[in-house]
Amino acid sequence: MLIKVINPNTTDAMTATIESSARAAAGPGTLIEAITPVMGPASIESHYDEALSVPGLLHTITSTEPADAYVIACFGDPGLDAAREIAPGPVIGIAEAAMHLAMMLGRGFSVITTLSRTRGRAWDLAARYCPPRACLGVHATDIPVLDLSPSSLKSVVALARHALDHDGSDAIVLGCAGMADLCAAATAELGVPVIDGVAAAVGLAETLVRLGLSTSTRDEYAFPPPKTYRGPLAGFAR
Amino acid sequence: MLIKVINPNTTDAMTATIESSARAAAGPGTLIEAITPVMGPASIESHYDEALSVPGLLHTITSTEPADAYVIACFGDPGLDAAREIAPGPVIGIAEAAMHLAMMLGRGFSVITTLSRTRGRAWDLAARYCPPRACLGVHATDIPVLDLSPSSLKSVVALARHALDHDGSDAIVLGCAGMADLCAAATAELGVPVIDGVAAAVGLAETLVRLGLSTSTRDEYAFPPPKTYRGPLAGFAR
Amino acid sequence: MLIKVINPNTTDAMTATIESSARAAAGPGTLIEAITPVMGPASIESHYDEALSVPGLLHTITSTEPADAYVIACFGDPGLDAAREIAPGPVIGIAEAAMHLAMMLGRGFSVITTLSRTRGRAWDLAARYCPPRACLGVHATDIPVLDLSPSSLKSVVALARHALDHDGSDAIVLGCAGMADLCAAATAELGVPVIDGVAAAVGLAETLVRLGLSTSTRDEYAFPPPKTYRGPLAGFAR
Amino acid sequence: MLIKVINPNTTDAMTATIESSARAAAGPGTLIEAITPVMGPASIESHYDEALSVPGLLHTITSTEPADAYVIACFGDPGLDAAREIAPGPVIGIAEAAMHLAMMLGRGFSVITTLSRTRGRAWDLAARYCPPRACLGVHATDIPVLDLSPSSLKSVVALARHALDHDGSDAIVLGCAGMADLCAAATAELGVPVIDGVAAAVGLAETLVRLGLSTSTRDEYAFPPPKTYRGPLAGFAR
Amino acid sequence: MLIKVINPNTTDAMTATIESSARAAAGPGTLIEAITPVMGPASIESHYDEALSVPGLLHTITSTEPADAYVIACFGDPGLDAAREIAPGPVIGIAEAAMHLAMMLGRGFSVITTLSRTRGRAWDLAARYCPPRACLGVHATDIPVLDLSPSSLKSVVALARHALDHDGSDAIVLGCAGMADLCAAATAELGVPVIDGVAAAVGLAETLVRLGLSTSTRDEYAFPPPKTYRGPLAGFAR
Amino acid sequence: MLIKVINPNTTDAMTATIESSARAAAGPGTLIEAITPVMGPASIESHYDEALSVPGLLHTITSTEPADAYVIACFGDPGLDAAREIAPGPVIGIAEAAMHLAMMLGRGFSVITTLSRTRGRAWDLAARYCPPRACLGVHATDIPVLDLSPSSLKSVVALARHALDHDGSDAIVLGCAGMADLCAAATAELGVPVIDGVAAAVGLAETLVRLGLSTSTRDEYAFPPPKTYRGPLAGFAR
Repeated sequence: MLIKVINPNTTDAMTATIESSARAAAGPGTLIEAITPVMGPASIESHYDEALSVPGLLHTITSTEPADAYVIACFGDPGLDAAREIAPGPVIGIAEAAMHLAMMLGRGFSVITTLSRTRGRAWDLAARYCPPRACLGVHATDIPVLDLSPSSLKSVVALARHALDHDGSDAIVLGCAGMADLCAAATAELGVPVIDGVAAAVGLAETLVRLGLSTSTRDEYAFPPPKTYRGPLAGFAR
Repeated sequence: MLIKVINPNTTDAMTATIESSARAAAGPGTLIEAITPVMGPASIESHYDEALSVPGLLHTITSTEPADAYVIACFGDPGLDAAREIAPGPVIGIAEAAMHLAMMLGRGFSVITTLSRTRGRAWDLAARYCPPRACLGVHATDIPVLDLSPSSLKSVVALARHALDHDGSDAIVLGCAGMADLCAAATAELGVPVIDGVAAAVGLAETLVRLGLSTSTRDEYAFPPPKTYRGPLAGFAR
Repeated sequence: MLIKVINPNTTDAMTATIESSARAAAGPGTLIEAITPVMGPASIESHYDEALSVPGLLHTITSTEPADAYVIACFGDPGLDAAREIAPGPVIGIAEAAMHLAMMLGRGFSVITTLSRTRGRAWDLAARYCPPRACLGVHATDIPVLDLSPSSLKSVVALARHALDHDGSDAIVLGCAGMADLCAAATAELGVPVIDGVAAAVGLAETLVRLGLSTSTRDEYAFPPPKTYRGPLAGFAR
Repeated sequence: MLIKVINPNTTDAMTATIESSARAAAGPGTLIEAITPVMGPASIESHYDEALSVPGLLHTITSTEPADAYVIACFGDPGLDAAREIAPGPVIGIAEAAMHLAMMLGRGFSVITTLSRTRGRAWDLAARYCPPRACLGVHATDIPVLDLSPSSLKSVVALARHALDHDGSDAIVLGCAGMADLCAAATAELGVPVIDGVAAAVGLAETLVRLGLSTSTRDEYAFPPPKTYRGPLAGFAR
Repeated sequence: MLIKVINPNTTDAMTATIESSARAAAGPGTLIEAITPVMGPASIESHYDEALSVPGLLHTITSTEPADAYVIACFGDPGLDAAREIAPGPVIGIAEAAMHLAMMLGRGFSVITTLSRTRGRAWDLAARYCPPRACLGVHATDIPVLDLSPSSLKSVVALARHALDHDGSDAIVLGCAGMADLCAAATAELGVPVIDGVAAAVGLAETLVRLGLSTSTRDEYAFPPPKTYRGPLAGFAR
Repeated sequence: MLIKVINPNTTDAMTATIESSARAAAGPGTLIEAITPVMGPASIESHYDEALSVPGLLHTITSTEPADAYVIACFGDPGLDAAREIAPGPVIGIAEAAMHLAMMLGRGFSVITTLSRTRGRAWDLAARYCPPRACLGVHATDIPVLDLSPSSLKSVVALARHALDHDGSDAIVLGCAGMADLCAAATAELGVPVIDGVAAAVGLAETLVRLGLSTSTRDEYAFPPPKTYRGPLAGFAR
């Protein structure tokens, strides 16, 4: 099967990191194609960036060959509802994926994110996907997305330790696709489940495809009604 | 004071309806400017349309002279978080406005919306703005947005009557900016508060401006960090 | 339009403070009449005081000329449901008003209140008006209501700073009508939205009146069924 | 032990019904004193009535000899928080009592109340005392409080049967103290637990007294701070 | 009336402690029989122990003479739903009992438990029995169940003091049946209501029996459908 | 990898159905071993049955060779917490699995279950795993578990159609492992996602194993403290 993993930001190096994590997670017979959109922000660190990453994400889905499933590889799950309407297969967000898996691994999880301004979005997503008291805390390293690197491990691990103690959590969710390559080392250091949403989403996408499950087309997520689009977005008319 | 009321779709006739409702609601000394974006969908009837209305909305805010406050005149409140980061004054969504006012007028409200596929979005917004049991039902007329007209009154009123009885609600929220011109007649027929979000948002925007209140710039809603944007969206870099 | 702002306690000096804040918030053409009831407690610092402030509040509404709207200027929103049944126009509580506006200004708010024993009431009201995680904390200065003065600013600001940091909030709600005159100075010091419920309620009341909206008379908030009242309260029979 | 059961309305015949139910529920050695306040409404059928029943209730507590525990025998639980501050023993509301017992008897309960306008209050109390989905429905017979009589049984039973089927509930809570004398017959007809709050509250009050438990005096429910009261309520100053 | 108090663990000394607390709580005319099951774990300190305490609990109910009511004397409320299906009278768990009483005594309670690994179960039960913000904290002494003794008082009281301050609670729930004999002394030291679930459950059981209330047999809690059981559990077939 | 799929009831024919569904769902390289416990009820149709299925489930885990992951193939997710403490790999319940996948496929799901008395358990699990309004309804076919057969398809499909219309849902969760073999046909008839928990759990288990994730051993789900077990359960001592 083919899973397209779309990095909603336009930084190719980050797409490479995501691809590497996605491929490591994929089972035998699964092809991973990681894609950088042709338009949008270099990184997503605000609601503004997130909103403006969605056209590129949607364009990527509609302008390329169909895949069996799609992963949106940004922890804000940008454009998830819209993508579900137009994609020919199931669509999984990495926050969604990480939180669902985390709920099966313990009492409650803490999220380690990048800038403190993104914590609100993580709480919103936890409210969308989880019952109360599944997400027990959201903590920011204050490392900008594009500054994440293997040397960020120390900060992430220290903050995760604080979160486990302070929140009473027993699992860690990495709150940025750019942390995917820190997952193994963080797991080794922390001794609790550490969940990278990219890997989690690939696994969930494979499961849905294997079970023949895709987004319901009854009512809300049916293909959008046709209409004209104006201006620079005219090409988005379906 | 100047309030910009942005119609996130690109249908000028609908902008005119919105402008009329907004002006009728405005107090003395308030200037209303209703604006149609230069890009985006002719109407918003799916998550896809909604996501793709946001660039035009944001462009409208950043490419024109500052206003004292902004109203987003689509019941899905598209781009609300993003707009708050970049607008020089407070930003109010019409679903948000209608729901807040409705909560002060009775036990609980029902929403009358357009296509049934948009009901999920209304429930999501109710969960974001309200405690449980404030929104008691969401009902669809199944009239497409651009087909709304004065002759839609009969359908809207009949459905609202059903909603009041079935949901045990005592107020009606009109779930589309295109219903703004039905509000007075529906009120007269139903005998309960009927809330048009456009008028509600104008009132709330005036209040915030008069009180000197605007979006908090502490952390989450501060101006977005600068970065490059790629492709057709390059001009959105702040 | 005429808005009656009722101070449910019987301290005239506090009514004067409230009136001043209300008038500063009112738009052109709005008349503010602040009223002290003829019966009730000198201040409201317990559930007992709050319950016993309600007869005076209701008497004020029914024994004076009708207004276009009413504001209940105590942060416990005493008698709000009852007042809605008998008032000839919409009724707004100041906690309700402040919380609704705060939800449009950021991620979440903290409440700064007077005595620590009143914190529970603030949490109850947040549960009534807001979704989870809108109110992120309630903190007490432990200054009695009638001891509030311009010199309380320092305590209020210090506690608000602590609340913003500790709760992760980005707006402050002043939890007592007697703090209304501290709002401008606290705003200047804190750099985040500081919301005085008196001003907020006046703005919301104006909006409702201008839009022709008042409490639903369908079922729950219809005028009370007539009946006899016994003893010193006999005059309350409607 | 002595339990004072206060009927917050001023109809002596209803106090007699309440007393009878309370005595039947009391264990050996428990003295029940049912009391009609000297002031207040003849029945409680609106928020207005409920608010104005509270002074009489509080006066009853403070103007008579102390009891070991107090029951507030109106399903709206009027003045419960205030009574807890001033009563020398624990205070139980009958809605509270009935709902707590109902939660130990099955999956979920339906409330059968009097006028439809009182349903909102029942929902509010369920939200205060219960987790979601404990109260599964609230239904009104539309029999005024003072018209309740043994002949109301048929209506109550028919509505309860509808509620059990429609709500998927498996227990019935009687939503008015005036229904206390219907409890045994309704139980016999319905074959499910039918809970009269008066009896429930007496049982809970006995339990609290026997265990030496009373309202916490730490902070919120401590005795109210002293202050002057003005006008006809001057005598309420503590 | 006869109340059987079943200690779901198999340590006779703990049954004796429980019996003593239960008898002290019982009213005149109530017989308490405390029982140790013939099978199961010596103490309950994990989900594994809890699950394996249930067969012994159920066997105790079905293999002995009927009682008027049953108490499950372990704070995890093991087997509560199952016991309700087969017991000839009402069944009360001690966590359930303690939490219901605590909600009538103040703003919110903190639970003091044994091992930290049991805190999650306490939160789950609070979510089952209570609305949000009734349980304000769960704290572990880290004393194993069978090490509890009168000398544990100091630890329990110190932790309770911390909980009251840190959680803003005003009542304490003892989170283990083995703490029953600490209740009086802890109450004396703390000056707030301290609730022992064993005593609370006895009181509630007496109330239910006196009111003629037992588990609903409509649908969910009806006697289980008959069927065969295999292997060592064959004797459990009903 | 080896996944053990444990049927908590003791009916071998049902284990065969489960095994077949599990194998069809498994990816390349995954070995499925479906197991019937040596003790326990022939089917699980009550809380009593469910509680008594847990010893056999736990015994199955501890008495056989370790697997890479475990699936509990009964829609009540019996013994899930206990199994997580003792299993050497991750453990997934089929209700949990089905609900998590359903949340990624649409607006909300309805559950189709067997006996009406099991509906309460489904609601409890939805509250444990999902945010409000994810599970929109639970409906019973009233077919006993062991009477499920291919000929049950018609009833299941008819009830599912009713559920989709009545609940406003857009996906169906099959509420019994014994319905696993109806999934493909029901999907074909209904045209919406139909989720069999057995298949879903196998997919999730594979994902967790591939990602190296297992239950957190920090605190709550660590291996249980050692202790003696009495009587017929003595062999359960760890």
